[in-house]
Amino acid sequence: MSAATADNLLLLFDRPNEPIFTPKGNEKKIIQVPEEYLRGRYKELNSADAVEYRFASGSSERIPVKPIPNPGLALPESLKKDAKFSLFIPLHEQMATQVIDFLLGMKNMEDFWAAAVYFRANLNPQLFNYALSVAMLHSPETQDSDLYPLHSLFPEKFFDGEVLYRAREEVEITRPEADERITIDIDRNFSGSDLDIEHRLAYFREDIGVNLHHWHWHLVYPTSPRDIADKDRRGELFFYMHQQILARYNMERFCNNLSRVKRLTNFRDPIREAYFPKLTATQSSKNWVGRGSNAVMQDISRPEENLFFDIQHLERWRDRLFDAIDLGYVINTKGEKVQLTEKNGIDILGNMVEASDLSINKPYYGNLHNMLHMAIANIHDPDFRHLEFASVMGDSATAMRDPVFYRLHMAIDDIFQTYKSTLPGYPVQELYFRNVRVNKLSVQVEGKDENQLFTFWKKSAVNLSNGLDFIERGAIYTNFIHLQHQPFTYNIEVSNQGSERKGTVRIFIAPKYDERGETLLYKDQRKFFVELDRFTVDLSKGTQMIKRKSEHSSVTIPFERTYRDLGKKRPGFGERLERFNFCGCGWPHNMLIAKGTETGYPCQLFVMVSNFADDEVEDDSSSDECKDAMSYCGVRNKKYPDARAMGFPFDRNAREDVTTLEEFMTPNMKVTDVKIFHLGNKIDS
Amino acid sequence: MSAATADNLLLLFDRPNEPIFTPKGNEKKIIQVPEEYLRGRYKELNSADAVEYRFASGSSERIPVKPIPNPGLALPESLKKDAKFSLFIPLHEQMATQVIDFLLGMKNMEDFWAAAVYFRANLNPQLFNYALSVAMLHSPETQDSDLYPLHSLFPEKFFDGEVLYRAREEVEITRPEADERITIDIDRNFSGSDLDIEHRLAYFREDIGVNLHHWHWHLVYPTSPRDIADKDRRGELFFYMHQQILARYNMERFCNNLSRVKRLTNFRDPIREAYFPKLTATQSSKNWVGRGSNAVMQDISRPEENLFFDIQHLERWRDRLFDAIDLGYVINTKGEKVQLTEKNGIDILGNMVEASDLSINKPYYGNLHNMLHMAIANIHDPDFRHLEFASVMGDSATAMRDPVFYRLHMAIDDIFQTYKSTLPGYPVQELYFRNVRVNKLSVQVEGKDENQLFTFWKKSAVNLSNGLDFIERGAIYTNFIHLQHQPFTYNIEVSNQGSERKGTVRIFIAPKYDERGETLLYKDQRKFFVELDRFTVDLSKGTQMIKRKSEHSSVTIPFERTYRDLGKKRPGFGERLERFNFCGCGWPHNMLIAKGTETGYPCQLFVMVSNFADDEVEDDSSSDECKDAMSYCGVRNKKYPDARAMGFPFDRNAREDVTTLEEFMTPNMKVTDVKIFHLGNKIDS
Repeated sequence: MSAATADNLLLLFDRPNEPIFTPKGNEKKIIQVPEEYLRGRYKELNSADAVEYRFASGSSERIPVKPIPNPGLALPESLKKDAKFSLFIPLHEQMATQVIDFLLGMKNMEDFWAAAVYFRANLNPQLFNYALSVAMLHSPETQDSDLYPLHSLFPEKFFDGEVLYRAREEVEITRPEADERITIDIDRNFSGSDLDIEHRLAYFREDIGVNLHHWHWHLVYPTSPRDIADKDRRGELFFYMHQQILARYNMERFCNNLSRVKRLTNFRDPIREAYFPKLTATQSSKNWVGRGSNAVMQDISRPEENLFFDIQHLERWRDRLFDAIDLGYVINTKGEKVQLTEKNGIDILGNMVEASDLSINKPYYGNLHNMLHMAIANIHDPDFRHLEFASVMGDSATAMRDPVFYRLHMAIDDIFQTYKSTLPGYPVQELYFRNVRVNKLSVQVEGKDENQLFTFWKKSAVNLSNGLDFIERGAIYTNFIHLQHQPFTYNIEVSNQGSERKGTVRIFIAPKYDERGETLLYKDQRKFFVELDRFTVDLSKGTQMIKRKSEHSSVTIPFERTYRDLGKKRPGFGERLERFNFCGCGWPHNMLIAKGTETGYPCQLFVMVSNFADDEVEDDSSSDECKDAMSYCGVRNKKYPDARAMGFPFDRNAREDVTTLEEFMTPNMKVTDVKIFHLGNKIDS
Repeated sequence: MSAATADNLLLLFDRPNEPIFTPKGNEKKIIQVPEEYLRGRYKELNSADAVEYRFASGSSERIPVKPIPNPGLALPESLKKDAKFSLFIPLHEQMATQVIDFLLGMKNMEDFWAAAVYFRANLNPQLFNYALSVAMLHSPETQDSDLYPLHSLFPEKFFDGEVLYRAREEVEITRPEADERITIDIDRNFSGSDLDIEHRLAYFREDIGVNLHHWHWHLVYPTSPRDIADKDRRGELFFYMHQQILARYNMERFCNNLSRVKRLTNFRDPIREAYFPKLTATQSSKNWVGRGSNAVMQDISRPEENLFFDIQHLERWRDRLFDAIDLGYVINTKGEKVQLTEKNGIDILGNMVEASDLSINKPYYGNLHNMLHMAIANIHDPDFRHLEFASVMGDSATAMRDPVFYRLHMAIDDIFQTYKSTLPGYPVQELYFRNVRVNKLSVQVEGKDENQLFTFWKKSAVNLSNGLDFIERGAIYTNFIHLQHQPFTYNIEVSNQGSERKGTVRIFIAPKYDERGETLLYKDQRKFFVELDRFTVDLSKGTQMIKRKSEHSSVTIPFERTYRDLGKKRPGFGERLERFNFCGCGWPHNMLIAKGTETGYPCQLFVMVSNFADDEVEDDSSSDECKDAMSYCGVRNKKYPDARAMGFPFDRNAREDVTTLEEFMTPNMKVTDVKIFHLGNKIDS
């Protein structure tokens, strides 16, 4: 059997900070690394006695590697092993792109494997993880392989450093044969206290699944190389996925008696929000630095990362984006005007703002989103004089932990919303579904009153063993506490007076009142609508009851997929539930609905059944996998499966004379008042 | 043989973050910890199978412990194991005092040993290290034992975190039997770059010996308990030792083309100096946080540490100290005036400023020095909302790394200097030594021109093995680069026209020019004089040449004492050179003279021979050990061995009509121009 299997490739992810020649995986396999792949100290040790024999005694299998010539990629190899790798840094993205291109250019799996081993031996571990992940997700031979979830490989990006230390101690002081290891508990409030009002939202910002979603989204939608970045409606999805995060976050804030996020409009203002992540970079002194209150962004000049820009650049890029919106056209690199049309405007803007390789004119419209991230991430050391790396804001796997992430994205979203406000409100005929009426809408938790939802705290365990260097093998679990909700069912009664047709059911939820307790008007409320589900139904003639379970949401991925333990129970290929490649992208199911309040948080549940004939997307590819979380992540290798604007019907201001949600409604829509109760005193384990 | 030996006590310091029951020391001894000493997880494991057998297989010896009843010290036991312990926090000092009192109250060594084992098992490791160190230094049975130097136990407080990770990897990937471990090099510029002008002084601030000196000084001179704090002229020594650090630091600054340290006079001003220590707290997420530019001190309200004070308190304490100086008296706790006399004024002030238990009125004069440290150390999280611990400024072992330490101490020194300026200049008859004249003064480096001194970079190694938890035993060395100088000899020609007498030779060095290149006037230059040596000579009649070697300095301790490797070569008791108890206090010899410049930094070397009859101190105790570094550290169990004011003759402004050093001189003094050359291109290894 060839060594070039996806299973063996996965071994290259294991314990990313250990050298290539230590035993890999629970079976302690040894990779027979060609000696010409070794550098420095490892080469020295190898010349004394081949490194593959160093740890081979406890090992079950040795995996051969056919040497390939040195890839000659000096740029990616120049990134120090203990540096922080950040996709927001164009230089780092360029490094990753070179590696991804090289891997995807291999003529067969044998060479792919050999090249992957080479890179494992010679690249920064985070750069390697990203590049091999993207390459595997986008190569036909490997795209079905399971990837380890990032938190199991780089627990330092997800877990309190103290917990990692205690896990390591537990392994050291217990005997493997005695099966006596206990699970280490994580303190829910490890990063702060409620004296900081922003800490009330820590359960959302620090949720492991939320951060995995964000990391995975950027893995599925890299901004480069262009042929990988060039996915259907990618720019629009960038807008929509982040807009939905904000809608969710604002609703959580209301539940916690906080007002909506303040946009970061003035880049010169001190940033009031502080954040100290308590994450420890175990392999170096390059810790995840905290940010105190009232830090001020500075011009960035960091030669190590080839990162140079001023606050004035950020301001000009932002102003040029608003110029484009207010004038109705963008200017491409040839100096030509390109109209922002109803159809493509948001997608063009999304690619310009982020900015991906699809940006219509990167020299002119710049790189606002990524550079804003970096300006904040380097606020403590803008010119690298202190040799400090980026804060959590510089890494897509950690950025959502920081309160300022949401202020940044509210400013970004403001650009998109300003554009959306230039579009005419949907006329009734675009909203209307002739002869279809929604008569009734309710949600039901089994055994409870109608229209009451329930959330609670739940304790779950994850295995840290694959991410803790140099400790004895065998699982070591940590317990974390996260939000969860009781499963519920949507009951939607629809009458169809016309012929048999297909309809798209769109389910949203929004707060009923704003932070002052006033009823929300449509123009505000529309931005707070959180998509819960979207699916197709066959509408027979007459009245029918559509029942849909919460766990089938098109927004979320199952809890088990996020937290599965590859080390413990390796699924075979094709085993659906455990898949975590493209399918790993998706909002974590445990965060489907907001926390609510103990007295019941008043929301409005909204359903619309639209005409599938208007929603359908032509796509001749046959694959139909990984659409579980299509609302925020799309569908692999396919067009986005909904012809409507993302967020429809709430993506625009309403038609004239509509000020309330009630006035906005057409007969194919229905709204129901729902309360979300938080069972705060209960921790389910 | 009893288990209660000093050797066994030393095992309790080894690998401070490992549990009590892991093998200790290179001989892997097992401490038979009584089961009633164990708590929590350790107790659980013990009930399954006594923990002492867990690691006993590779161990040579088991050490019995006679159980003592629970000491019932709830306060010190309440400090979490991963909390940062700080002597500057009164609550922590109180914890340490309880433990020290308990240990010193043990009626025999057997009980002392048993109690020490109890505390090792149940206290925060840093608190334990401090309390046992102070108890051992102050107990007659143990005061001669060697203590591990702190950097070998807590390398995280001294070394770049990256180096510790690399050391650990080196141990993991090499085979103990093959003797193939290499020494890990530390990058000299690990904490910053010269873009930060303050980084030019990193070699001084981050010198291991400099920080060990500061830590050890505070170990020898604790502020509490009172009977230990109450050492001869302790308050004055607090002033003088820190004043000398500042003189040294300012001279280093001049050598590096920087102006003298700016006093921290306005506690409300943003602090321009930033510092990112790159130290990693390995056992927790409580990293050594950095401080960005322009942080502003806030009122402190940290319940966890029972630490509550405002900036207004700091200001009032400072103002009351100046009131006392300008009025000439302090007010004691009974409301009585106590005059500040020429004899005791500086000592009273020193104890008030720090403030030790000897403070004459702590409620009124407060705790300025320690609370200033804590205000800066907690600048990032003044009210503990972010659960952040103190920065390097909160620990005497790390505070000298931070540029702001010197600004703080310049403000503190300003108080003392203001007081000193109220004293009359020494009249000639106090400076004069009848019939004694210094004819000539020079320094000589062997083989070089007269009056030229030479510094260079030297590479030295230390063993980290005792401080890295859970790794294989056996030395693992790291190389660090530090300043060093070529040894030199002072040649002092003295003529004595009177009878045979004793004289005290006092040698100082100071910059000749200020940061503008102007010749320093006496009133400024006196504060820049750095004491190099002080010793007694017999003056026979006639002319004689006094030769004194630089390595005998009364200020420094030998390099070998600072960096000795207890694990490698354990000295027997009484083996002088390796002693590191009281004797561990002292300026590191490698930092005796400033770095100089490549073209030769112009200094003035000063010698004075004073009349020993006026200097002599009556002391009937016979011991005469550990006086190597008496200038800054005093002599163990004895009075400070010089009746003169510390810093004499430069501790006061000059008598009237004196503006230059030349005018200040009496015949028993001599000044010589000396240049310090830095051989920058040479690293000696």
